[in-house]
Amino acid sequence: MFKQITIIGFGLIGSSLARAIIEKKLAETIVCVDKDQEVCNKVLAMGLADDATTDPALGVEGSELVVLCTPVGAMQKVAQQMGRSLQKGAIVSDVGSVKTSVIKALQPLLPSHVHLIPAHPIAGTEFSGPEHGFAELFINRWCILTPQAHTELKAIEKLTQLWEACGSNVEIMDPEHHDLVLGITSHLPHLIAYTIVGTATDLEDDIKSEVVKFSASGFRDFTRIAASDPTMWRDVFLNNKEAVLEMLQRFTEDLTALQKAIRKGDGEYLYNHFSETRDIRRAIIDAGQAEYVYPEDDDADTEAAA
Amino acid sequence: MFKQITIIGFGLIGSSLARAIIEKKLAETIVCVDKDQEVCNKVLAMGLADDATTDPALGVEGSELVVLCTPVGAMQKVAQQMGRSLQKGAIVSDVGSVKTSVIKALQPLLPSHVHLIPAHPIAGTEFSGPEHGFAELFINRWCILTPQAHTELKAIEKLTQLWEACGSNVEIMDPEHHDLVLGITSHLPHLIAYTIVGTATDLEDDIKSEVVKFSASGFRDFTRIAASDPTMWRDVFLNNKEAVLEMLQRFTEDLTALQKAIRKGDGEYLYNHFSETRDIRRAIIDAGQAEYVYPEDDDADTEAAA
Repeated sequence: MFKQITIIGFGLIGSSLARAIIEKKLAETIVCVDKDQEVCNKVLAMGLADDATTDPALGVEGSELVVLCTPVGAMQKVAQQMGRSLQKGAIVSDVGSVKTSVIKALQPLLPSHVHLIPAHPIAGTEFSGPEHGFAELFINRWCILTPQAHTELKAIEKLTQLWEACGSNVEIMDPEHHDLVLGITSHLPHLIAYTIVGTATDLEDDIKSEVVKFSASGFRDFTRIAASDPTMWRDVFLNNKEAVLEMLQRFTEDLTALQKAIRKGDGEYLYNHFSETRDIRRAIIDAGQAEYVYPEDDDADTEAAA
Repeated sequence: MFKQITIIGFGLIGSSLARAIIEKKLAETIVCVDKDQEVCNKVLAMGLADDATTDPALGVEGSELVVLCTPVGAMQKVAQQMGRSLQKGAIVSDVGSVKTSVIKALQPLLPSHVHLIPAHPIAGTEFSGPEHGFAELFINRWCILTPQAHTELKAIEKLTQLWEACGSNVEIMDPEHHDLVLGITSHLPHLIAYTIVGTATDLEDDIKSEVVKFSASGFRDFTRIAASDPTMWRDVFLNNKEAVLEMLQRFTEDLTALQKAIRKGDGEYLYNHFSETRDIRRAIIDAGQAEYVYPEDDDADTEAAA
């Protein structure tokens, strides 16, 4: 499909993409770029790339596709370094969780003869690093592309084919809209999870050990998403500030209303609110995005115990 | 182990307990009490009890153990109805998610010749009703008993044996302490989940359908616990008001601090906060309460995608 693909940043996503490309034979050559020489060595030793370098300018030479898999905050610097070395007609893409700010950061630094097509594969685990990647990570996951109005259709098609070959379902979206939707489905939930786990971390030591012991009663679900990569999430919140703060504002208002109902002992308000939220779960199950799970699947962090 | 056990309230927990008692042969006779005649009929048809009645006074006659499996808010009324019919030396227990208020509600209504031993099996699913119960629900789950200082040791031992025979790990705890620990590990997480799912429910219809579509990016985990039984959770918040409001206060302070950091663009604060929360996850995994899960286990609602 491609003669040469460069992947910049070999963490969980970058290394998983490399594995999927190798498994599906989507490129003749994969070049690894990572600022960490040790990671470069590891990637070569694991056979995840044909060549590896810490220098983006060197690494992108001759590649038809360059995918930035670094944290969002590092992308601008990478673009500065590699910009002039990009070959004519190359596709530049990324895997960042925010899209508007990525476009704003990259667009001015790229030569006009390349195609910038930002992408966001909605996939991951709470583990970071190239050793945790796996080729199946993207199977049945969404991958959202946010091309601009002037982007060449043929380039969009080519990138679509790559992600579909990795097993993803590709969706085209406006970057602002992407940031709003992910703000509520992903960024706000992560912020909330980080907060509640942080609140527990600050508890007195004796209670903290019991929180760990009895975590299966609800808390545990939050700890998994609050164990995600801190650098990545710092950059998400710095780069999707407006959408996150807007959704957080709504959340806080709703939380205050529930708090007031608890304080006043307003059982009717609580009951009505708790009934409405069941519908969304049902819609998610109907949409094939979740299934009924028995709580004895212990490995799966799944029970809604009380 | 017991000649006759009465289970009052045949929902998910009550029916699961009946199934476990039958499977492990822990009682000669099980009597079902449920205010709904249809549930009584269903329970008899499913073979989950030997006898069924809507009258608590009738149902507890001759039982050595009576377990209240109704929502916490209904327990006082049940105690009023059954109080005088309890046989001498009977053990009265429950499965409620709060303990202090249950003791306060039940103790004055029970004759002095019975043993009140409140209990809380930390187990459940997001589904309600007798048809969703299963005997294995309590296996490897905690069951917390909150006896009082004067409770007869032999009665505590007998109830402990029952729960251990159902597969649970029994822990004895002070009722106030139980309510505080569960306030942070269970009640606050459920309140937060209910809130965020409610916030999404109020979104404009076009965004709402996308929230469902892309829910796997974090949001989905919250919808499962926000699909729990509304009556049960209304009663939890009405009956553990103080501990929940106290924990909510701390949570809100922490959330406000993170909000401020996002607004100010304070990446260092965000990074430090997001790093600290990883430790608790590690402690939970070390304590054998969670395991590494690959995200392709789609049924398991598990990925921490971004």
